[in-house]
Amino acid sequence: MKLGIVDTTFSRINMGKIALDELEKNKNIFGKVEVIRKTAPGIKDLPVECQLLFELEDCDIVMALGMVGAEDVDGVCAHEASTAIQGVMLANSRHIIEVFVHMKESVRDGKLDEKDLVALTEGRVRKHVHNAVWLVKNPEKLIERAGTGRRQGREDEGGIEAQ
Amino acid sequence: MKLGIVDTTFSRINMGKIALDELEKNKNIFGKVEVIRKTAPGIKDLPVECQLLFELEDCDIVMALGMVGAEDVDGVCAHEASTAIQGVMLANSRHIIEVFVHMKESVRDGKLDEKDLVALTEGRVRKHVHNAVWLVKNPEKLIERAGTGRRQGREDEGGIEAQ
Amino acid sequence: MKLGIVDTTFSRINMGKIALDELEKNKNIFGKVEVIRKTAPGIKDLPVECQLLFELEDCDIVMALGMVGAEDVDGVCAHEASTAIQGVMLANSRHIIEVFVHMKESVRDGKLDEKDLVALTEGRVRKHVHNAVWLVKNPEKLIERAGTGRRQGREDEGGIEAQ
Amino acid sequence: MKLGIVDTTFSRINMGKIALDELEKNKNIFGKVEVIRKTAPGIKDLPVECQLLFELEDCDIVMALGMVGAEDVDGVCAHEASTAIQGVMLANSRHIIEVFVHMKESVRDGKLDEKDLVALTEGRVRKHVHNAVWLVKNPEKLIERAGTGRRQGREDEGGIEAQ
Amino acid sequence: MKLGIVDTTFSRINMGKIALDELEKNKNIFGKVEVIRKTAPGIKDLPVECQLLFELEDCDIVMALGMVGAEDVDGVCAHEASTAIQGVMLANSRHIIEVFVHMKESVRDGKLDEKDLVALTEGRVRKHVHNAVWLVKNPEKLIERAGTGRRQGREDEGGIEAQ
Repeated sequence: MKLGIVDTTFSRINMGKIALDELEKNKNIFGKVEVIRKTAPGIKDLPVECQLLFELEDCDIVMALGMVGAEDVDGVCAHEASTAIQGVMLANSRHIIEVFVHMKESVRDGKLDEKDLVALTEGRVRKHVHNAVWLVKNPEKLIERAGTGRRQGREDEGGIEAQ
Repeated sequence: MKLGIVDTTFSRINMGKIALDELEKNKNIFGKVEVIRKTAPGIKDLPVECQLLFELEDCDIVMALGMVGAEDVDGVCAHEASTAIQGVMLANSRHIIEVFVHMKESVRDGKLDEKDLVALTEGRVRKHVHNAVWLVKNPEKLIERAGTGRRQGREDEGGIEAQ
Repeated sequence: MKLGIVDTTFSRINMGKIALDELEKNKNIFGKVEVIRKTAPGIKDLPVECQLLFELEDCDIVMALGMVGAEDVDGVCAHEASTAIQGVMLANSRHIIEVFVHMKESVRDGKLDEKDLVALTEGRVRKHVHNAVWLVKNPEKLIERAGTGRRQGREDEGGIEAQ
Repeated sequence: MKLGIVDTTFSRINMGKIALDELEKNKNIFGKVEVIRKTAPGIKDLPVECQLLFELEDCDIVMALGMVGAEDVDGVCAHEASTAIQGVMLANSRHIIEVFVHMKESVRDGKLDEKDLVALTEGRVRKHVHNAVWLVKNPEKLIERAGTGRRQGREDEGGIEAQ
Repeated sequence: MKLGIVDTTFSRINMGKIALDELEKNKNIFGKVEVIRKTAPGIKDLPVECQLLFELEDCDIVMALGMVGAEDVDGVCAHEASTAIQGVMLANSRHIIEVFVHMKESVRDGKLDEKDLVALTEGRVRKHVHNAVWLVKNPEKLIERAGTGRRQGREDEGGIEAQ
């Protein structure tokens, strides 16, 4: 499989490096995964980079890694980027795993908790690397986990039995 | 008819299983329904899965089953997923029954009522299974029910006579 | 002319029936109008039904009749449906008259005024039937009414002279 | 050049008539401008009318003239119309000058100031007629005015020198 | 490389001129950069201008320079323009660097700080000129800066080490 990874210079954490590390750590489990890595200025530059990774590199799947600033306008930018990422998926009929970390998820009492931001970002990126590989190589792994309340970056919430 | 079903690992309830159970319970009424079942990580991964079910499996209709978290950002994700699901329907000229359960529909006094969430999810999924089959096999069943205030997951509100 | 009409089972009022009645009442004025009527579960199912009416039935114009629930999430659904209806119009270069009634338009002191809802819905559907016919058969009727503050469902507001 | 003009019956002011008057007043300056005028019911009907003016009439540019009601739901309608107008521009690679007047721009102490609404609408429509002609015939006129804080309907705000 | 630059007459600062100045100042570093400059009335006119720069001028990349007014409706316009700019990027598989300055970023105690607006605009435009050139000529420069918290117009926030 061929995996595209795009991150940003805006992010305060090198998200692409975390994804590469997770791939390296799991190389025996994952098997062969070819990786193409790109970096764009900000999250609004991610959608077209993803598309170029499909068109020019023929990636099977792409991970779009972005950090969203804490201001309201940053939330709007994230929404615009996400909407366009959906458009790229549909135009190419391939998955993009969108891994966005919102800085305000780690704001405590009006102050950024950098340690929490690192933990959150690490967890979210690393878990989604597995989702990306499963979607391409082992989609049945996801069916096994249907309805089990999986979360990326925080603790799983767990499943609730329906009967 | 061929029915695609996609749900998520994010959901706390196995929504795909409920849909399969409803199909099984009604097999004498529904007649032959071939089912393809998939699971994606979260609701934003549903639209492209729906499209793949149209393109690769030639499904007549797809049910997109998702649970929406209780935070504001989850509502935005649901909106992005819904917008893209509309795009998939129009690009393929086929129906997707979007069955989204918002966790905050079952929050009482700031706390998740798990029992209510199960009842709501069961009701919404099961009733929409009938809508999906009707849309493909018996669209006149829907015309008979026009303007009758049908609800999925809660009690029907009923129709109001216009004159 | 060929007119498509789609309404929903969610609506508490049979909107399609009102449209058909208005067409019947005005048949001497309107001349020949062939009608195809469909019903979908909810407003999010309207856009693809409209598209099918263009693609399979070759309708000249479609009326999308929907009732929007009073909750915030219903407003978001209406927005998603409207956005997709715009997409269908542009992909087919034909008009869709979107006739959406928001239940909260008829909420007085936190309670639904059913009588007002009926009056509002009747008025909106009936007046828009005329718009639909004019758009196809007599577009000059609309130019004559430019800037005259027309409203559907409530009283016209009237025009203001610019000089 | 061929200019399309579309306005609405919803608007309380005949915006198309103002545009035609401005063209007439400036005919010696503008040179030959062929005009096609249409009217649609409301702002959501404008995008497809614009597209028809490109497809059927081969207009070089279109002016979409609309008045937006003062309620929140009207703002959402305007947003849906604007989004679709962007879609028409991109699908046809031609400009549409969107001239929307929001009634709440002229609300003072909860009451509509009709005189102000007329002044605002006149100013906005007339100035944008010049923009439309410049975009087709004299785009360099716009480069000369870059960064000069132009406003349509209210006073220009003027430019701020960068050094 | 061929770089398109579009700005607006709405902006209170001549943003295109700043971009041209930054290119001139760095011509020894950047090497040959051919530039096409356009101006449109407002931010909603930018997306189609960008598309025309791809279609008619075959630009490798475009900078869309806009100033966003301080009212809520201006924020909605910016969102509509941004969404359409994403559409242009995806339809053409090329980057557009969106450089939007929101006037309210420079509002202090309800009053516009013109000096701050100039500093912010200069910084944002100049830094993004480098991003535009890097994306086309030296994309590895961006990978080197991944996760380093770059900001345009304000101070960089810097990177946080993940381990």
